[in-house]
Amino acid sequence: MTSERQKMTMDRLMKIVDSVYSQLNDGEIPATDLPLRSKSNIEFDPRTNVWKYGGQMTSRNCKTVKGATMMLRMLHTIGFIDSMIKESRTSTLREMYYISEGWGYGKFTSQDESNLLAEDLEIISAFMREDFRLRPEEDGASVYGDITVDTVNKKGEKRKINCFDDDEGYKIPFNVEKEKIGIRPGNAKFIIAIETGGMFARLVENGFAEKHNALLVHLKGQPARSTRRFIKRLNEELKLPVTVFTDGDPWSFRIFASVAYGAIKTAHISDYLATPTSQFIGITATDILNYKLPTDKLSDQDIAALKSELTDPRFKDEFWVSEIEAMLGMKKKAEQQALAKYGLDFVTDKYLPDKLTDLGIL
Amino acid sequence: MTSERQKMTMDRLMKIVDSVYSQLNDGEIPATDLPLRSKSNIEFDPRTNVWKYGGQMTSRNCKTVKGATMMLRMLHTIGFIDSMIKESRTSTLREMYYISEGWGYGKFTSQDESNLLAEDLEIISAFMREDFRLRPEEDGASVYGDITVDTVNKKGEKRKINCFDDDEGYKIPFNVEKEKIGIRPGNAKFIIAIETGGMFARLVENGFAEKHNALLVHLKGQPARSTRRFIKRLNEELKLPVTVFTDGDPWSFRIFASVAYGAIKTAHISDYLATPTSQFIGITATDILNYKLPTDKLSDQDIAALKSELTDPRFKDEFWVSEIEAMLGMKKKAEQQALAKYGLDFVTDKYLPDKLTDLGIL
Repeated sequence: MTSERQKMTMDRLMKIVDSVYSQLNDGEIPATDLPLRSKSNIEFDPRTNVWKYGGQMTSRNCKTVKGATMMLRMLHTIGFIDSMIKESRTSTLREMYYISEGWGYGKFTSQDESNLLAEDLEIISAFMREDFRLRPEEDGASVYGDITVDTVNKKGEKRKINCFDDDEGYKIPFNVEKEKIGIRPGNAKFIIAIETGGMFARLVENGFAEKHNALLVHLKGQPARSTRRFIKRLNEELKLPVTVFTDGDPWSFRIFASVAYGAIKTAHISDYLATPTSQFIGITATDILNYKLPTDKLSDQDIAALKSELTDPRFKDEFWVSEIEAMLGMKKKAEQQALAKYGLDFVTDKYLPDKLTDLGIL
Repeated sequence: MTSERQKMTMDRLMKIVDSVYSQLNDGEIPATDLPLRSKSNIEFDPRTNVWKYGGQMTSRNCKTVKGATMMLRMLHTIGFIDSMIKESRTSTLREMYYISEGWGYGKFTSQDESNLLAEDLEIISAFMREDFRLRPEEDGASVYGDITVDTVNKKGEKRKINCFDDDEGYKIPFNVEKEKIGIRPGNAKFIIAIETGGMFARLVENGFAEKHNALLVHLKGQPARSTRRFIKRLNEELKLPVTVFTDGDPWSFRIFASVAYGAIKTAHISDYLATPTSQFIGITATDILNYKLPTDKLSDQDIAALKSELTDPRFKDEFWVSEIEAMLGMKKKAEQQALAKYGLDFVTDKYLPDKLTDLGIL
């Protein structure tokens, strides 16, 4: 069964093939245009508050052996996507790399190449990797709280999963588009996206979801696309405000920024993935001081990352500038689990209620 | 609600405390004995086919400040475990490390110390970390196939979960002891424990579990204790034979060995974790040759690891010696997803049926 969106995906990809074909037919050297994928061509869009590609374009053409090989790869890949859509199958990005062994000329020489090509096709087609039925190696972040997910399993059975039923939560699949996953509201009133598995388990065990009608989402460090997309849909469709609870270090600040404003690597699909109204409730330099948290010393990489964040448009407001400068000043960072210094309940009895009250969420 | 096993755990731990107390009372310098935890004291038990500690003992005493500090930490930790058991709570190992900040004297200076102490307590008490209600940071490997799990969620509701219902499978919690998780048979006839998420998803999508009545378990690389324990229980209670499907490299051979024979780090609980009848169906040097698989060159670390396996009693049989020597000879390794060279169905249509037929499982 091919959905409407899958048909549209394939129509769009076939237009690329048609264009190559007619250029060849007209005796031209085939070429495709796409936005230049370099840092110089990524812009922060102040209107939507997310990263986007700018107007610089580049042309991929077959004037060189390298260019012709890339074109051949693209056509092979479109053929592979076509067969997956027709057979309702999926493939990992790693499998696609190995599948290309069977292509002879045009096979990939590294997985970086095949990953990049998948992203190029997203940009050219304005569809997503998930529409191409390509999946990353790992997914499986969890959601715990009172909402219901509707889906159909591979046996064709309808499944209604309340994300509150099992203590391990609901495991987010790689494709969370509307065609696969329906979302229905429950008692959950807001989202806490949590960096570490330990803290996610802590909030589950402490009954924070029940007591405050919170929906807990485990980010698993830098979150997968499906996790960010799921949060975005929860925010848009169920109108749940999003908060992000991370460690207090420069890499965790970037985790927040990727949820809120998008990542440079996925700038072409920021509209799908980013939730610009997300609010930060992770550990700050101020928290480290106020709560006298156990800390680690900033490494040279940490310091460089913080300095680079001071020039990053995503961190340009007063809150971030002052917190980043304070962290550079104290030269220390702290983990979210460091709150356990005051016992297993401190995070749910004091830390989170204070932060959420400040934001007007509790 | 404290279960019988939890009472027994606490009784055993309190005996340690009593012993320290009565030694102090008798004017003695307190000491505890435990097996020496070094490689020299780990033996392969040919009767049960797993790793065990040998007979060398060491004494921890309070004659030095360091020794007294370690004793204090142990008593603090037992107190913390006591409070968790009384309140039906759990804690991550990381949280326990931070909790110790509140202890003043006796606080841990690194998480290595607190992790090691938890293992020491396992050895002294002959109970498990899970009995102490301590959990690792991450768990969450998945099981897919026709068996049923009975459990009670934190709301006290009975949950009957068929591991065949949802395409994402059933997520293994950190504690899979009988007190928490009941296992009931279904149509699943044997287990395939799979190293990577990509291959797990491939077998799910290709319908391998349905077609061959297989139970698929995702190992997620080097498997967590709960994953190994769950496999062991499935093997013992449901009499399901266990096969292990990994990449073809020295680290993957060790993944197999830890499922089958136990790991040096957890030698004191090999009886709980290891399934010595497990059979290897991962990629071998022979497969690389026969199937002309895409390969990577062995690194120096790979070569050293293979050479060390030649002196490891777990790899002493003819099959392993010949495969390890062949891999050293060809200087190449291959991933399980490399089978995609022949398309997405090759692994389920040809590779696995051949291996499982050779073993008499299909």
